[in-house]
Amino acid sequence: MTAKLIEIDLSSEVPAYAQIAGEIRALLVTSELRAGDPLPTVRQLAVDLTVHHNTVAQAYRILADEGWLDLRRGRGARVLPRSRPAGGGGDKKPHATFRQQLRRLLAKAAAEGMSPEALAHQLKLHARDVRGWLKGEA
Amino acid sequence: MTAKLIEIDLSSEVPAYAQIAGEIRALLVTSELRAGDPLPTVRQLAVDLTVHHNTVAQAYRILADEGWLDLRRGRGARVLPRSRPAGGGGDKKPHATFRQQLRRLLAKAAAEGMSPEALAHQLKLHARDVRGWLKGEA
Repeated sequence: MTAKLIEIDLSSEVPAYAQIAGEIRALLVTSELRAGDPLPTVRQLAVDLTVHHNTVAQAYRILADEGWLDLRRGRGARVLPRSRPAGGGGDKKPHATFRQQLRRLLAKAAAEGMSPEALAHQLKLHARDVRGWLKGEA
Repeated sequence: MTAKLIEIDLSSEVPAYAQIAGEIRALLVTSELRAGDPLPTVRQLAVDLTVHHNTVAQAYRILADEGWLDLRRGRGARVLPRSRPAGGGGDKKPHATFRQQLRRLLAKAAAEGMSPEALAHQLKLHARDVRGWLKGEA
């Protein structure tokens, strides 16, 4: 992985550590990063993104806690094999949170001038893409 | 508007003021709040959401700066008539930001166990809804 794949907005209201974790999580979920792949060192990524190294370390720890990364000292960070949580267990919290955040995201984009047509187009594109992300897992 | 329409998650990494602004913005964009509607006072909403009143005041200021609210002292907050920005001017920033945040949001939900089918279903539902939000404006 190169830092080129990660873009964060230092003026955003979302903390940088959460943005970095979110960007890397997207690469993991879409299998752009696969089990065994190495990640940049904390210091390297911090330099590339012009953030404090603690910010990157916090993002890596979040992803390690989620089961995505192996952070063993001296070995750097590496992607672990991880299967998607079953999700069939009836946990409705991710669904409710997703709907709420999608609604907020759409409202923000609409308020900034994206047309309903452009938003609907993006949603449909992603509805198609998202099926491709996780195929082969089922 | 009642505070019942607003839900925030105090354990979220997104600051409470941004969540409150996001929730109210969604009500504004979908016309659940319309021009002339009064908003709860800062203190009332702060009590309802169990946050500091400065947190609500910050959310109201953000929405006032965006042209949604009239905050004239002594009159409380009221929804202003506001037309959606034209958006045809070629400003690509909202589009790029939207795509990036949608991608992060989908990755988070997938990592938490939402199935590709459930995600695609939600995206399609919202693609339909979003056209309805702004109809009558064009």
